[in-house]
Amino acid sequence: MSEDLYAAADFCLIPMGVEASVGPYIAKCHQVLEKSGLKFTMHGYGTNIEGPWTEVCKAIQDCHKAVHEQGAPRIATDIRIGTRTDRDAVPGTVNDGKLARVQQLLKEGEGVSQE
Amino acid sequence: MSEDLYAAADFCLIPMGVEASVGPYIAKCHQVLEKSGLKFTMHGYGTNIEGPWTEVCKAIQDCHKAVHEQGAPRIATDIRIGTRTDRDAVPGTVNDGKLARVQQLLKEGEGVSQE
Amino acid sequence: MSEDLYAAADFCLIPMGVEASVGPYIAKCHQVLEKSGLKFTMHGYGTNIEGPWTEVCKAIQDCHKAVHEQGAPRIATDIRIGTRTDRDAVPGTVNDGKLARVQQLLKEGEGVSQE
Amino acid sequence: MSEDLYAAADFCLIPMGVEASVGPYIAKCHQVLEKSGLKFTMHGYGTNIEGPWTEVCKAIQDCHKAVHEQGAPRIATDIRIGTRTDRDAVPGTVNDGKLARVQQLLKEGEGVSQE
Repeated sequence: MSEDLYAAADFCLIPMGVEASVGPYIAKCHQVLEKSGLKFTMHGYGTNIEGPWTEVCKAIQDCHKAVHEQGAPRIATDIRIGTRTDRDAVPGTVNDGKLARVQQLLKEGEGVSQE
Repeated sequence: MSEDLYAAADFCLIPMGVEASVGPYIAKCHQVLEKSGLKFTMHGYGTNIEGPWTEVCKAIQDCHKAVHEQGAPRIATDIRIGTRTDRDAVPGTVNDGKLARVQQLLKEGEGVSQE
Repeated sequence: MSEDLYAAADFCLIPMGVEASVGPYIAKCHQVLEKSGLKFTMHGYGTNIEGPWTEVCKAIQDCHKAVHEQGAPRIATDIRIGTRTDRDAVPGTVNDGKLARVQQLLKEGEGVSQE
Repeated sequence: MSEDLYAAADFCLIPMGVEASVGPYIAKCHQVLEKSGLKFTMHGYGTNIEGPWTEVCKAIQDCHKAVHEQGAPRIATDIRIGTRTDRDAVPGTVNDGKLARVQQLLKEGEGVSQE
């Protein structure tokens, strides 16, 4: 029970008690995540991130700490996090791989009903 | 109270009671969303989607219906959904605009602390 | 495709651009939900709610509208929403039933490994 | 940056690749959480949990590990997690306190518009 599971995750951090436009806080998170060394990609409503469970959780906590330091008195974050034991994860490729698989299926028309 | 708010959203649909690899179900959702006429973009752990609140919710329900028809007896979805009244939404640009704003801030170094 | 699925859901609404303590906004949501006629129960980090999919989504949008009227310029909500076709839902009992089932299993020790 | 933030959280764990009815897996999580020593309360669509950030994340990973051991090849979890620096947390009381505050406001009619 001591070893970390490999986690594919996505999170959306919401600073509270500050102005409604929170771009600067999210930009700060980007810098924090770069220092984490983990693979991450921002999108329009969150950030894909993956790595050993503990490191992913630490990176997100580091974002909270940095955003508190920027002046947000409260933060609410939504995290989606997934693990699997039926295949070996190639580090840094899991979230991209899920998207690529769907795109491949769409291209092939495989597994998708024809209407 | 009768008019729809404009909603920027993101959702992650999880088929339950089926095999662990769910790419074909997500590919089917892609087809359903294309028919919705709404702006959407898939990423590694969900799908950005935006439009009038009711239409966004209807599109996600249509995904549930299609995935049930594909054989999944149960589905659990996580939706992040946001609205704002301090600025007018340009339909189809809100999620992309949020990401572009963060990227601009990172480029300018504005609002991001220097360390 | 025209009939509503029965949805068991849970949501957490976060007012942005206002003070950090948001109790009054959540209390307002409680009043909005009472008017919806749907079964709901608040807990420490969200609200269980269930009913026909469209009505659940409408009730949550009504909360957004009311919280905007209270002065919040931006709102971010996280919704968990589930549907199933392998059993008939008895309206108003699904979320409570899930919890009761787990409690029953714990009581019986059934399905739970002995260590 | 080394000390843990106190986190109020809520999570919903979804076993994939197994049967649609997942009560036994959630019952197992209940046992895992009892061993964590953290304050937690299950509801109809998830579990309130709170404590130092790292311990909350570890407890949820321990649930993943236990559910994988029970035979689920894949797990997807949604976590809501919040921190604040504008008040000191009394350990074990934060999630309950949020609910109590809303109930108090409803009782007093304070902060809730009269219609």
